[in-house]
Amino acid sequence: MEINGVDIKDTYAEGFGIKVTRMLVTAATKKLAKIAVTEATGYGTSVIGCPAEAGIDGYVPPEETPDGRPGYTIMICQGGKKALDHELMERIGMGILTAPTTAVFNCLESEDVLKTGNKLKFFGDGFEEVIDIDGRKIHSIPIMSGDFLVESAFGYKEGVAGGNFFVLANSKMSALVATEAAIDAIHNVEGVITPFPGGMVASGSKVGCNNYEFLNASTNEKMCVTLKDKVDSDIPDDVYGVMEVVIDGVDEDSVREAMKQGIKAACNVDGVLQISAGNFGGNLGAYKINLQDLF
Amino acid sequence: MEINGVDIKDTYAEGFGIKVTRMLVTAATKKLAKIAVTEATGYGTSVIGCPAEAGIDGYVPPEETPDGRPGYTIMICQGGKKALDHELMERIGMGILTAPTTAVFNCLESEDVLKTGNKLKFFGDGFEEVIDIDGRKIHSIPIMSGDFLVESAFGYKEGVAGGNFFVLANSKMSALVATEAAIDAIHNVEGVITPFPGGMVASGSKVGCNNYEFLNASTNEKMCVTLKDKVDSDIPDDVYGVMEVVIDGVDEDSVREAMKQGIKAACNVDGVLQISAGNFGGNLGAYKINLQDLF
Amino acid sequence: MEINGVDIKDTYAEGFGIKVTRMLVTAATKKLAKIAVTEATGYGTSVIGCPAEAGIDGYVPPEETPDGRPGYTIMICQGGKKALDHELMERIGMGILTAPTTAVFNCLESEDVLKTGNKLKFFGDGFEEVIDIDGRKIHSIPIMSGDFLVESAFGYKEGVAGGNFFVLANSKMSALVATEAAIDAIHNVEGVITPFPGGMVASGSKVGCNNYEFLNASTNEKMCVTLKDKVDSDIPDDVYGVMEVVIDGVDEDSVREAMKQGIKAACNVDGVLQISAGNFGGNLGAYKINLQDLF
Amino acid sequence: MEINGVDIKDTYAEGFGIKVTRMLVTAATKKLAKIAVTEATGYGTSVIGCPAEAGIDGYVPPEETPDGRPGYTIMICQGGKKALDHELMERIGMGILTAPTTAVFNCLESEDVLKTGNKLKFFGDGFEEVIDIDGRKIHSIPIMSGDFLVESAFGYKEGVAGGNFFVLANSKMSALVATEAAIDAIHNVEGVITPFPGGMVASGSKVGCNNYEFLNASTNEKMCVTLKDKVDSDIPDDVYGVMEVVIDGVDEDSVREAMKQGIKAACNVDGVLQISAGNFGGNLGAYKINLQDLF
Repeated sequence: MEINGVDIKDTYAEGFGIKVTRMLVTAATKKLAKIAVTEATGYGTSVIGCPAEAGIDGYVPPEETPDGRPGYTIMICQGGKKALDHELMERIGMGILTAPTTAVFNCLESEDVLKTGNKLKFFGDGFEEVIDIDGRKIHSIPIMSGDFLVESAFGYKEGVAGGNFFVLANSKMSALVATEAAIDAIHNVEGVITPFPGGMVASGSKVGCNNYEFLNASTNEKMCVTLKDKVDSDIPDDVYGVMEVVIDGVDEDSVREAMKQGIKAACNVDGVLQISAGNFGGNLGAYKINLQDLF
Repeated sequence: MEINGVDIKDTYAEGFGIKVTRMLVTAATKKLAKIAVTEATGYGTSVIGCPAEAGIDGYVPPEETPDGRPGYTIMICQGGKKALDHELMERIGMGILTAPTTAVFNCLESEDVLKTGNKLKFFGDGFEEVIDIDGRKIHSIPIMSGDFLVESAFGYKEGVAGGNFFVLANSKMSALVATEAAIDAIHNVEGVITPFPGGMVASGSKVGCNNYEFLNASTNEKMCVTLKDKVDSDIPDDVYGVMEVVIDGVDEDSVREAMKQGIKAACNVDGVLQISAGNFGGNLGAYKINLQDLF
Repeated sequence: MEINGVDIKDTYAEGFGIKVTRMLVTAATKKLAKIAVTEATGYGTSVIGCPAEAGIDGYVPPEETPDGRPGYTIMICQGGKKALDHELMERIGMGILTAPTTAVFNCLESEDVLKTGNKLKFFGDGFEEVIDIDGRKIHSIPIMSGDFLVESAFGYKEGVAGGNFFVLANSKMSALVATEAAIDAIHNVEGVITPFPGGMVASGSKVGCNNYEFLNASTNEKMCVTLKDKVDSDIPDDVYGVMEVVIDGVDEDSVREAMKQGIKAACNVDGVLQISAGNFGGNLGAYKINLQDLF
Repeated sequence: MEINGVDIKDTYAEGFGIKVTRMLVTAATKKLAKIAVTEATGYGTSVIGCPAEAGIDGYVPPEETPDGRPGYTIMICQGGKKALDHELMERIGMGILTAPTTAVFNCLESEDVLKTGNKLKFFGDGFEEVIDIDGRKIHSIPIMSGDFLVESAFGYKEGVAGGNFFVLANSKMSALVATEAAIDAIHNVEGVITPFPGGMVASGSKVGCNNYEFLNASTNEKMCVTLKDKVDSDIPDDVYGVMEVVIDGVDEDSVREAMKQGIKAACNVDGVLQISAGNFGGNLGAYKINLQDLF
């Protein structure tokens, strides 16, 4: 199968279950909202080593937010409920409450909730109040610079982590720019994040490690461009650049749509030769998303 | 004392000891370097709730870096050596190694070192190599997109956290813009970071909590602008906006210089009326930096 | 009339007819598209002194563009057809053709057209080709870095210039931040641009000049905050900051919608006290847009 | 000659004389200064079609500016004095005076001056004043949002336009990213601008036109990557991407230093194969800068 002359390999991405939350962070200006969410979603590429997987989902213009201010939706994801609860407390409490003019609204309806706002309110030392915005229960907490607003409870549900695809191209920089184009496209899909730096994964790994048995993940040497001539490489002859995109979503449909839009965009960039995907033989993850089935 | 008509209050900032590291992250372009350091230093405003205090120190042009590429210096700080070691491993391993085209060099000479690079090398699964750049011992680790370079060991030393000042102004937005100007100025001082979102602290706190005894920090109601008429406020009559800047540095001199430059810049913004600072009576922190002594 | 406690003055903005064009500029990535349109729309605040009024309308995601790449719509406006023709030639030829990976598509259907693409094709020196994208006649012109694509003809029509409102606030910086919030909101309205720097007008003027008769426009002293106590000022007692927003649109409805969204957003920012507008007694412009009628 | 394995061709860039000005634009914050200079230097890639060549030279931190605020140096260049005078008036008057909180200082000492500030002062309609900042004669002009400050006179002198080099690489995107790296490096050289979009020139041209005699410049088909197999191409076999960088400077030394730093930086990017330069046989321009002589 080809898109715009690019080979779409007959393989699948293997995804995993993860608990996801999704909230909207507004502020006086778009720039101030961006500052807050950038802090709150940093250090959140993969739960392999980060305390959470986190990222910016999309921009929401003033006309469409509960308080008429510009904002960004973000997602914070973790495998365990307790860890997720902790991450919401600290990422909102240390990264958004501390940023000027912010408010945080829940964007994921679910029976299962984390009472983050209800706990953060104690920071107000008795001066906090409950207010209603758009039918939502909001805690208004006086801070030095004004009042911080946070919804009382945030829904969480089982989502999908590890949606992914590989971009193979005629040079390292072609793969890099194509991945950037893919991320641009994915930013317009609701309910997904690309948690790695700038959305790009430069270091796709394999499970386990052949030389150092104490490691449970290591470099995927068969896909490393600088090892192409040194190992039994999986990289096609004409390919000299490889990059990966990893996607977390609120459900499988969102992840599939993000993969579809991302792949289409990557195939529009000069020098892209093949789209592939990462999986672990299908035994580890609950989700198998075949690339060709997306189109 | 006045600067540009702004009252510099006769008070002091109270700082604390903290273990600091400082490294340079380079990449193919300035933008790619920024993407990596933004991820690696996120979720790092205060060790009260974040796993580390982290931030971008400054930009270093290609002409001045070991590999002739653009880069940013960053600092990662923690109270304990073990926690600091963990943070370097994960923030570099998950946030920089995963970003395209990056390299990480140590920028803090010290006898005490963390062997982060020496540990990250195992990700190479035997394909890693040791190379020399500019007299430095560098591990070159093949990853999908190319080779990730990381210095073998990173120095750490006792630095200073919690340098700070308050900007008091005639409106919330005057305080906000003045704080932004202060941050712009501080970015040019070497060896310091302003770890809060965009460098601004909207929510300066007090030690302890009057109403909820389980909390050991809570809102500083006497400095909250929206509580000015409800409590025995410390906010002057003509002040309606308050923001704080918090600074971590490699040593007291760096923090003092950052406070000086930041305060001078804030005093250049229309509407700023007073500069103050936060302390805890001098009993908690090892460093007392008097505002008026800076000038 | 009040919005969120802000006084909406019973006055009107006076707008003028202007010839408008609107085109979509796509590129390999969102960032590359932004670079091109920033160059092409610069030096374009007002035809009083600039060769055109020009600006970025909005972002269009890959899924919604003719070539599946990210892009920005821009508008270029001029009073005269000949001058407009020249501006399209040079702003596209010097500012977009010269930027890497770009393509330009017409976004304004009209019987009146400027054959910009048809003239730019000669740059190809015989190597240019005509291709079809989505039913559009496109000239593909080989340039050093690849092929530049440009639609053959661009529609133009009579639009509206000079839609505007003033933001009056309790400090200069409150007015500034509120104006920024207004611009954020207006960016989501299709068919309009805010041609001044960052969308903000710091220097609203009056027609004519009292002291220097050779000038046909000069500072509006009655609205200057630093002259409040020196002249018979029109600025209310509690106002210490004034900023203006100016809007050009493809038609009156677009300008009205932009004014509405911008004013609503400004009224959400702390410290804003009044919204007013600029007019010249109604004798100069063809359009009178009453502020209160917008809501 | 090779740098980092990249062939530096034995050829030269041919530059031209041009009249240059250089000024510093400060504002309350770095962001506000950037907004102003971006507007003022737009639509200024080449005097072939733009009313001036203009660009941002570099960032100047608050500590180093006359008014202690962050700023950017910019350059505005034109062949003729009268046209240069007009461009300064309108680019400063329409693009910087109209932007909030700005001030403009002369940065080029010369006996030849343009009295831009002295003419812009009339906008103040008699309310303008002369003040002294750092020994400079400054006009303070009341505008709606505050006071606009502009130096009375700006020096101009004969500088150099058209310094340039080509980046040839293994793919279009390698050339593009390498050019971006070159621009990053050049931004740190004082006294130069790269006037094209984002500093990159995608469409290097030749003098004259073979097929359409009414054109005096047209595509350089021998260097067009998509015509490589259709014409008697000058592009080496292994090259599939070509980009150009064009530099204007206050003098030949500045241009040479910018070319040197830019070329070194480009040679650090993966996939770059050759650096070349553009000339017209040496008969048109007054400056010949040999690439190999730079190192």
